[in-house]
Amino acid sequence: MKLGEIGEFGFIGRIAARIGAGEGVRVGIGDDAAVTDMRPGYVLLTTSDMLIEGVHFDLAFTDPYRLGKKSLAVNLSDIAAMGGEPRHFLLSLAIPVDLPLEFLDRFVAGVLDLADLHGVTLIGGDTCKSPRGLVISITLHGEQLPERVICRAGARPGDAVYVTGTVGDSALGLALLQHGETEGPAIDRHLDPAPRVRAGIALAEAGLATAMIDISDGLLADLGHIAERSGVGVRVEAGLLPLSPFFRATAARFVPDSLSLALAGGEDYELLFTAPVACEADIFALTTAVGVACRRIGTITAGGGIVVTGEAGQPLALPKTGFNHFTAP
Amino acid sequence: MKLGEIGEFGFIGRIAARIGAGEGVRVGIGDDAAVTDMRPGYVLLTTSDMLIEGVHFDLAFTDPYRLGKKSLAVNLSDIAAMGGEPRHFLLSLAIPVDLPLEFLDRFVAGVLDLADLHGVTLIGGDTCKSPRGLVISITLHGEQLPERVICRAGARPGDAVYVTGTVGDSALGLALLQHGETEGPAIDRHLDPAPRVRAGIALAEAGLATAMIDISDGLLADLGHIAERSGVGVRVEAGLLPLSPFFRATAARFVPDSLSLALAGGEDYELLFTAPVACEADIFALTTAVGVACRRIGTITAGGGIVVTGEAGQPLALPKTGFNHFTAP
Repeated sequence: MKLGEIGEFGFIGRIAARIGAGEGVRVGIGDDAAVTDMRPGYVLLTTSDMLIEGVHFDLAFTDPYRLGKKSLAVNLSDIAAMGGEPRHFLLSLAIPVDLPLEFLDRFVAGVLDLADLHGVTLIGGDTCKSPRGLVISITLHGEQLPERVICRAGARPGDAVYVTGTVGDSALGLALLQHGETEGPAIDRHLDPAPRVRAGIALAEAGLATAMIDISDGLLADLGHIAERSGVGVRVEAGLLPLSPFFRATAARFVPDSLSLALAGGEDYELLFTAPVACEADIFALTTAVGVACRRIGTITAGGGIVVTGEAGQPLALPKTGFNHFTAP
Repeated sequence: MKLGEIGEFGFIGRIAARIGAGEGVRVGIGDDAAVTDMRPGYVLLTTSDMLIEGVHFDLAFTDPYRLGKKSLAVNLSDIAAMGGEPRHFLLSLAIPVDLPLEFLDRFVAGVLDLADLHGVTLIGGDTCKSPRGLVISITLHGEQLPERVICRAGARPGDAVYVTGTVGDSALGLALLQHGETEGPAIDRHLDPAPRVRAGIALAEAGLATAMIDISDGLLADLGHIAERSGVGVRVEAGLLPLSPFFRATAARFVPDSLSLALAGGEDYELLFTAPVACEADIFALTTAVGVACRRIGTITAGGGIVVTGEAGQPLALPKTGFNHFTAP
């Protein structure tokens, strides 16, 4: 079935029929604007990500269900990186007229299944046709008490630098897809990332992290964002980077420089944060409690930019730091 | 200059440098999510609109400055239609790599000038490249006391139906552009619509309107949304439709059926609302006070769908009701 057979409002109606009554939602889909309540004393966190066919995703690589999940996951990751509790979101789609309705139904199922998992409710958005290529834009709201919010600008010299999970798997997964592979743990990480929502909230509630960001542009680029906003430098020990067993076993076979992949690859959607060294035991207890690995990878310095050191402490040459739209690769 | 010379973060930095400290903004552009305060007791209103080159706008017809204004205006109109006070917004752009930076600067100037006019602050968004065509997605937040919010679902049989300003000018403007015209009042209405923000807030504060929507899909289609959500019918008197002098003098020369243009044309961004007849004097006093014309055009009925009557009270054949993506024209 084609979308043209049910039309714009038919499609919106199909989605609306699947949405339950969300907490704090007074008016959801179907009015000029959504109406939601905020918990008294909380501040509103808002993030928005746009995903463009041919730029952020390739329909030859991903299935619609995982594309739907990832579209919401990247936004959940941004709210997690502030320590926020995700609440409500808006989904806007520009849809090629020949895209099968079955594709859209699977896409929406992916979005809504991940939404259910995290207790967030779809409250609105926009649907229109696209002359060429699918365009996805999601805006996600979160909440947190103002004193708990963790920004990029709070890292202090002497703080330790931590990262959850492992880095480089998503970029390796993309490289494998481009080599014709179709499955495996790295490809799963690339197509179906798990946002660290519980870890982000736990860090916010504990008040331990001084700065935080999620890894979307790449470890070094995102460390650069913390360094810039905090007015500090960073020293990372390459030997401390958390690499998955699959990455260690596989990366060198597919890319010339696997360290660069881990440092600059991007789309890991892990949390990268800083905290006083004295809090380390509490941090590891907290991340263990939410079921996420956590590794100390370096130290915040008073200045000196971003330095990555090898096993003997010597500075290493840095790879291109992360993804930047519009500049030549 | 091309965008590639300053890159994604250079472009974002140019925008951020133009933004002042907005009321209620704790963290704006430059973190994983924006952090904003809500006024205690108020509910959050959120709307999102996506504009696609080749679908919603044609760069042969519009200049970037007015395109920027209109991109925000259509969202301001949605908040106005709820009776909300607009506060903060996020701007996401997918930009063709060959689009001149001068175009983007003018576009952003249009967005921000209209934002300043309405006291709303840009707090975030996303910027990425587009393989083909400019894509604009704006999410706008507003606030209102919950008891003041005006939804689509509140119209009651016997209520009168009102519309601000005039209808049909925007559709006429588009028709003129397609005929090779380049300027005039109807084209201005199409390219540079004025959202009825003050009128919407005034109606909300006065507590007079029972249902409200803005005219984006077309007068009949948007009346249909009120009728559907309120479970009522509508009778519109064609002779009462507010048509501008320019429309009366010009429309018949360019379109075969100017009444259809006024009824179904869309993109007027006027407010369409219902209220008890007993409130009429208060409504006209209120709209006069905010400098907006207002006309009673019909009556809410207990059922019977949407009927448009001619001068002798006879039902008229209805035109296609409004714009619907994906269905054939």
